[in-house]
Amino acid sequence: MVDIATRVWNHKWKIDPIVRSLIDTDFYKLLMCQSVFRNHPDTTVTFSLINRTTDIRLANLIDEGELREQLDHIRSLSLTRGESTWMRGNTFYGKRQMFTPEFMDWFENLRLPPYQLDKRDGQYELTFEGKWPEVMLWEIPALAVLMELRGRAVLRDMGRFELQVLYARAMTKLWEKVERLRTLPGLKIADFGTRRRHSFLWQDWAVQAMLEGLGEAFTGTSNCLIAKNRDLEAIGTNAHELPMVYAALARDDAELAAAPYDVLSDWHEEHEGNLRIILPDTFGTGPFLANAPDWLTKWTGIRIDSGDPAEGAETAIRWWTDRGEDPREKLVIFSDGLDVEKIEELHARFSGRVKVSFGWGTLLTNDFRGLAENDALAPFSLVCKAVAAEGRPTVKLSDNPRKAMGPASEIERYKRVFGVGEQVEREVVV
Amino acid sequence: MVDIATRVWNHKWKIDPIVRSLIDTDFYKLLMCQSVFRNHPDTTVTFSLINRTTDIRLANLIDEGELREQLDHIRSLSLTRGESTWMRGNTFYGKRQMFTPEFMDWFENLRLPPYQLDKRDGQYELTFEGKWPEVMLWEIPALAVLMELRGRAVLRDMGRFELQVLYARAMTKLWEKVERLRTLPGLKIADFGTRRRHSFLWQDWAVQAMLEGLGEAFTGTSNCLIAKNRDLEAIGTNAHELPMVYAALARDDAELAAAPYDVLSDWHEEHEGNLRIILPDTFGTGPFLANAPDWLTKWTGIRIDSGDPAEGAETAIRWWTDRGEDPREKLVIFSDGLDVEKIEELHARFSGRVKVSFGWGTLLTNDFRGLAENDALAPFSLVCKAVAAEGRPTVKLSDNPRKAMGPASEIERYKRVFGVGEQVEREVVV
Repeated sequence: MVDIATRVWNHKWKIDPIVRSLIDTDFYKLLMCQSVFRNHPDTTVTFSLINRTTDIRLANLIDEGELREQLDHIRSLSLTRGESTWMRGNTFYGKRQMFTPEFMDWFENLRLPPYQLDKRDGQYELTFEGKWPEVMLWEIPALAVLMELRGRAVLRDMGRFELQVLYARAMTKLWEKVERLRTLPGLKIADFGTRRRHSFLWQDWAVQAMLEGLGEAFTGTSNCLIAKNRDLEAIGTNAHELPMVYAALARDDAELAAAPYDVLSDWHEEHEGNLRIILPDTFGTGPFLANAPDWLTKWTGIRIDSGDPAEGAETAIRWWTDRGEDPREKLVIFSDGLDVEKIEELHARFSGRVKVSFGWGTLLTNDFRGLAENDALAPFSLVCKAVAAEGRPTVKLSDNPRKAMGPASEIERYKRVFGVGEQVEREVVV
Repeated sequence: MVDIATRVWNHKWKIDPIVRSLIDTDFYKLLMCQSVFRNHPDTTVTFSLINRTTDIRLANLIDEGELREQLDHIRSLSLTRGESTWMRGNTFYGKRQMFTPEFMDWFENLRLPPYQLDKRDGQYELTFEGKWPEVMLWEIPALAVLMELRGRAVLRDMGRFELQVLYARAMTKLWEKVERLRTLPGLKIADFGTRRRHSFLWQDWAVQAMLEGLGEAFTGTSNCLIAKNRDLEAIGTNAHELPMVYAALARDDAELAAAPYDVLSDWHEEHEGNLRIILPDTFGTGPFLANAPDWLTKWTGIRIDSGDPAEGAETAIRWWTDRGEDPREKLVIFSDGLDVEKIEELHARFSGRVKVSFGWGTLLTNDFRGLAENDALAPFSLVCKAVAAEGRPTVKLSDNPRKAMGPASEIERYKRVFGVGEQVEREVVV
């Protein structure tokens, strides 16, 4: 029996929106947004799209009109009553009123600011310039829109049957990963895959697969909308954009050297417990930890997001041990380019030595490798970064020089100020 | 949006019928039925269910009430106007009016006769006794009902998500088979999997997969309802029940020896071309061919349904060659327990030497091996056979003694009359 009402409803959609909610974003964006709203509400920041997989010519794959429709649709979104209720009333990491009434009042009235879209060399130049707490909210939906539009461009040419087989294969592939993971004792793993997901529906399915297959081992999702809809824990802490912008705002080398710790000092005042997670690699993990103030050693844990993950964790363990902390009480969150093999390896190596946790991203929510002709659905390395603050360029060194960004002269200056020496290049998977 | 009408409609179903049409059956059943209707309309025959996989205790797995509901539902079916139109108007193997007006008049008014259901030793004893053209139509739906009810008993305990993963895996598995088959040049293959299918919907999906993946290489389906709905060729010729019943009716050894040829003589008068396919193994392929009349060598081909298939085909090739026929003009249809490896092997060995064709059954429409706990969805060897005619037991020797049936003394007599010597036992897969 045909459901005529649904068919007619579907016809009415001008576009099938990719992002349908302001909270279809990572939880840490909202946490950071609140911190920025309090500490730097008027700082002007520029976010920019960067496709690190240059041989994927996005401007040739994705129709500009469609892209504009999707971005314009996001600009029409505002927080719904139910979303606001969830943010105001929910418990995050056991704490109520994580979001202040002042922040919520502001967020409830927010529309995302304008974007700037151009094409160059087969790529889109997509830029968001404005007040930091506003433009920063573009990052995740902009990435999700580009990833999904690229996927849709490939899916459009596939028949109904091909599509069914495609998703059957993707489901089988993902479920086999879940079945491998469920054998790991004491595993703790969360979904971190919003930004480079295949699609919203697919991320939602992946989250259900994790929940069904892993039970307690699945600790939650970084996606607020899915967390709300599926009654799950929203997961996340903070990201590189905070130290990058703080550093760009520094007026001299001394302020620059202090910037990464200023970020965490602000954070320290606002958050406790599981939200006190150090992200040490923005300007090199080694120097960051060596120069860290003692109060940082009391933080709950560390997130390893670039470089050799085992090496990063060993560095953190040595650091805690040297500073008189017991690493077994500390949390290490791995979140860089994970897949099952790497998770198994790190779990085996570090379980018992520290509390291990995994933030599984792209290869959870977008492992369509090998499933379409010419691998046209394989995920790729797309980022959207704060590239300037108050007109000054930002810099990221990372523990992998291939993830570094910023003008060469500034990179050199940062390396000197932070004391970063030779770094080992590693392939950027996703 | 919930389609309330569909939900309410679903609630109204007392049972979700497994067999919803009298033509949800093998095409050859209808062909044979017409032949029997013409030549033996009043012969009393008994069909009986035989579960060759005795460790699957069907009576413990399947609720008797549910089984009766399904069988009773089949008894309520009659040919619909559209089904009658399809049978009367369709072209089968290029021939119009394959079914005579007399047969169609009878078939349009047919309801299936009563069944007899008992339990013994954890198995169902399901018997159909009556006029041959009526009871013979029970075989396929009875098997489909038992196979699907056994599957449903397993599926009932699975969650919604588990079910989705199960079918994703089954689809992936089947599609990988299709992808292997599509590399075989000049392949000709049909669906023969109605009787032991996982379910009607799954068979329908499998047919679509074959159509989508193999194109011209997929020659059709034995299932008339699916052939009608999907606008495909209905495929099939004749089966063991004809020689078995003819043989049981023989009054002495001379008539017995002639019975298999009498069957084909009746068939010869009714059909030509692709419907003239010899099924030689009922009482042993070797003696059957050795004693065959010359007009049989002119038939289009042979179907190999037991024993070593390569050996069966070599025997046929030698036979045609010895009788002055060119094997390259002859069709060999393999239809016994096929899966991809066997199809590849036989295709490689016989392509070019004969016209090769495959009738792919259970491992096309029910390969759920390894997909459920304790392999509870793996197909098993269930048959429904004519066991008696006019009160006399039937016998089947087959080229595999494990597929033999009938009273021991009669088997000995048949072996003597047909001159069957030592036979090699082969595992019965499905």
